[in-house]
Amino acid sequence: ASQNLLLLPGDGIGPEIMVEVKKVIAWFNEKGGMSFETDDGLVGGSAYDAHGQSISEEDMAKAMAADAVIFGAVGGPKWDDVPYEVRPEAGLLRLRKDMELFANLRPAICYPALADASSLKKDIIEGLDILIVRELTGGVYFGEPKEITDLGNGQKRGVDTQVYDTYEIERISKVAFELARTRNNKVCSMEKRNVMKSGVLWNEVVTQTHKAGFEDVTLEHMLADAGGMQLVRWPKQFDVIVTDNLFGDMLSDVAAMLTGSLGMLPSASLGAPDAKTGKRKALYEPVHGSAPDIAGTGAANPIAMIASFGMALRYSFEEVAAADMLDKAIANALDKGLRTKDIAAAGEATVSTTEMGDAIVAELDAL
Amino acid sequence: ASQNLLLLPGDGIGPEIMVEVKKVIAWFNEKGGMSFETDDGLVGGSAYDAHGQSISEEDMAKAMAADAVIFGAVGGPKWDDVPYEVRPEAGLLRLRKDMELFANLRPAICYPALADASSLKKDIIEGLDILIVRELTGGVYFGEPKEITDLGNGQKRGVDTQVYDTYEIERISKVAFELARTRNNKVCSMEKRNVMKSGVLWNEVVTQTHKAGFEDVTLEHMLADAGGMQLVRWPKQFDVIVTDNLFGDMLSDVAAMLTGSLGMLPSASLGAPDAKTGKRKALYEPVHGSAPDIAGTGAANPIAMIASFGMALRYSFEEVAAADMLDKAIANALDKGLRTKDIAAAGEATVSTTEMGDAIVAELDAL
Ligand SMILES: CC(C)[C@H](C(=O)O)[C@@H](O)C(=O)O
Ligand SMILES: CC(C)[C@H](C(=O)O)[C@@H](O)C(=O)O
Repeated sequence: ASQNLLLLPGDGIGPEIMVEVKKVIAWFNEKGGMSFETDDGLVGGSAYDAHGQSISEEDMAKAMAADAVIFGAVGGPKWDDVPYEVRPEAGLLRLRKDMELFANLRPAICYPALADASSLKKDIIEGLDILIVRELTGGVYFGEPKEITDLGNGQKRGVDTQVYDTYEIERISKVAFELARTRNNKVCSMEKRNVMKSGVLWNEVVTQTHKAGFEDVTLEHMLADAGGMQLVRWPKQFDVIVTDNLFGDMLSDVAAMLTGSLGMLPSASLGAPDAKTGKRKALYEPVHGSAPDIAGTGAANPIAMIASFGMALRYSFEEVAAADMLDKAIANALDKGLRTKDIAAAGEATVSTTEMGDAIVAELDAL
Repeated sequence: ASQNLLLLPGDGIGPEIMVEVKKVIAWFNEKGGMSFETDDGLVGGSAYDAHGQSISEEDMAKAMAADAVIFGAVGGPKWDDVPYEVRPEAGLLRLRKDMELFANLRPAICYPALADASSLKKDIIEGLDILIVRELTGGVYFGEPKEITDLGNGQKRGVDTQVYDTYEIERISKVAFELARTRNNKVCSMEKRNVMKSGVLWNEVVTQTHKAGFEDVTLEHMLADAGGMQLVRWPKQFDVIVTDNLFGDMLSDVAAMLTGSLGMLPSASLGAPDAKTGKRKALYEPVHGSAPDIAGTGAANPIAMIASFGMALRYSFEEVAAADMLDKAIANALDKGLRTKDIAAAGEATVSTTEMGDAIVAELDAL
C-alpha cells in the first residue's frame, strides 16, 4: 500500500528546499522500494495570497488524512500587516492544534564536520547530542482569553493565557521518558515553578509520572532561566529536555544555534497513537525559519528539510534502515566538504541549494 | 543629609557577599565623603525561617522608605517544599511589585580580563557591552488568574496570565530609548507577536513611543526566539534590548552567561521618578542567584554584589565619579590577576570571597 505525504512548502526558502526533498522522495520510490504518493498544498503567506487564509479547509482536510505532512517554513515581512487571524503563522498553529501534535521533538546535534561553525568553543559543543521535547498544543500559544481590549483613554490591554492540564503534562513527560530510554536515559524538566502556577503543576506531574513507571530514567528539574544559562555554559550535561510550548520555543532555538548547524536541524511533531490503528498523526519541519532575505538566491541549505523527511521515515513509517541511510548520505556529502553558505567557514567554497540536494541523492546512489 | 540603605542579604551566598559590600560602603563613608546609613533586614528563606513570611511587614516598610535597597539573592533546596505564597522568591516579587520597580536594567558586559572564561569564542564576546531593559512589574509574573484548580478525576489545571497595558509598555520603552541615547543609540524590542496578543500590543506601543519623540534612536523588532538565537550567534549586534518580564528573565540569563562573567554582573530595578521629589525607588541586586551549593565555602564572587552598589551610586545617588571609581577598583583587582573560583581558568590560583572584597577596598585606597 502506498503512503500519503502532504507537502506544504510555505513561504520564503520553503519552496526551494522542498524541491530538494522531492528528489529524495523520488529516489526512495525508484531505488529504495518505497511507494510514497505526494500531494502539494499551500500554507502561510502563500496560502493567504492565494485565498485569504493561512491554510485552506481543503488543505487542512488533506493534512488530517495524510500519513505525514512535510512542512517547509512560513512568514516574512511581506505579510507583516495582514490581520492577526490570517497571519502566516496561524496556518502552522492550526495544523499543530487540529492534528493534535502535542509532542515536538527537536534534536540539537553538532555535526562533526561543522564543529567549527559554532560561536561556541569547539570543546563545548563537539559531539553534542541533545533532544528537546517541547509540548506543542498547549500553554500560552492556545490558552483563552487571548485578546487585545480597548480600555478607553488611549489605553489597550493585551492578554494571553498559559494553561496546562494534568493530562497534557503527563503525556508529554511520557514521550520524554520513553525517548530517554533509547538514548542516555536522562531527562531534565524545565519550568518556572518559582513564578508560575502552571510551572508548579508541571513540576508536580512530571515527578508523579516519573514515579509511576519511569524510575529507571534519571530525572532532574531546572528553572527555565537557569536552563537557558546551562545550555550556553555546558550543553553536554543534557540528554533529553522536556518543557512547555513557550519555553520550548526559546530553549530549542538557543540549543539549535549552539550547534552551529541551524540549517541542518530537523524536527518532528507527533500526535497520540490512534486507538485502532496505532498510527500517529505527524508533521515534519526544519527548525529554521523561512529566511525571506535569502529566498530565491540559491543560498538556502536544504539539509534540515531533507533530514525532516528522514525523521518521517523513522517515526511515521518505521523505515529505520532507510532513515539511517539518508542520515549517512547527508554526513557523506558534508564529509566531502560540500557546504552551503550558512555552514561554510570564511573563504570556503560553497554550493547552491540544488547542488547540495543533488549531492545527497548521489550519495544515496553510492551507498 | 545622610542616605538610607536597606541591606537585604537573603539566602545562600547572599550574606557572604553582602559582608563585602559593607566594607565598600564603609570605605565611601570614611574616605569618600559620603554618609550612608545602613539597616539590615531579612528576605527569602531566611525571613521565612525567622517569621514564616518571605519578607516581614516591618522590612517591607523599611524598603518603601529607604533611598535604595541592596539585595543579595534568595532561594535554595531547603525551601523547596514551603507553600507557594511564602516561598523565598515571593519576597523579591513583593518588593518589585509594591515598590513599583518596573524597569530592570541588566548590563551584560564582557570584562576584558575574563574574555577567555566564556564558553563562546573570544572574538564573539570580546568587548561585548549590551544592556537588557526588562519590564519587571507586569506580564505573566503578576497577571490574574494565577492558580491551580482541581478539575476532579485526578485532573488539575494550572493557569498563569500574561497581561500588558499600553502605559506599562510605553514607560519601559521610554527608559530603553533614553538609555540608548547615552550609549550606542540602538534599541531592539523583542516579543512573540506571531503568537501572543500581548506581543502584538507590545510591538505596536514600542513603535508608537519611538515615533513620538525618539526617532533619533534606531529601533529594531525581533521575535524573542530569534533574539535568543542572535544573542548566541553574534551578540555584539545589540546595544539596548527591551523586552517583557518573562522573556527578559530568559534572555538576560542567556546574555549574562555569554559574557563568562556571571558572577560579575549587577542589576538595577527602578521605579518612576516621584512627582514631587524626582527620586526613584530602587533595588540593586546581582544577576546571579543564591548558589546554595557553594554557600559557606568562601568560593562566592562578591563582584556582582559590589558592582550592584556601584549602580546604586550611579542611578540613585548621582555619584557618577564614585561609581566610576568603584568600577575602576574592580577592574584593577582583576587586572592584577585576582580570581574567585568561578572566573579562574583551569589551574589558575584563586582567592576567597573575603580576599576579593578586601582587594577591591585596597584598590579604592590606591586610586
Ligand atoms: C512560526 C512560529 C509560530 C513557531 C512557534 O513559535 O512555535 C516557530 O518559532 C517554531 O518554533 O516552530
Ligand atoms: C528569583 C526569581 C523570582 C527571579 C525572576 O524570575 O525574576 C530571578 O530569576 C531573576 O531573574 O531575578
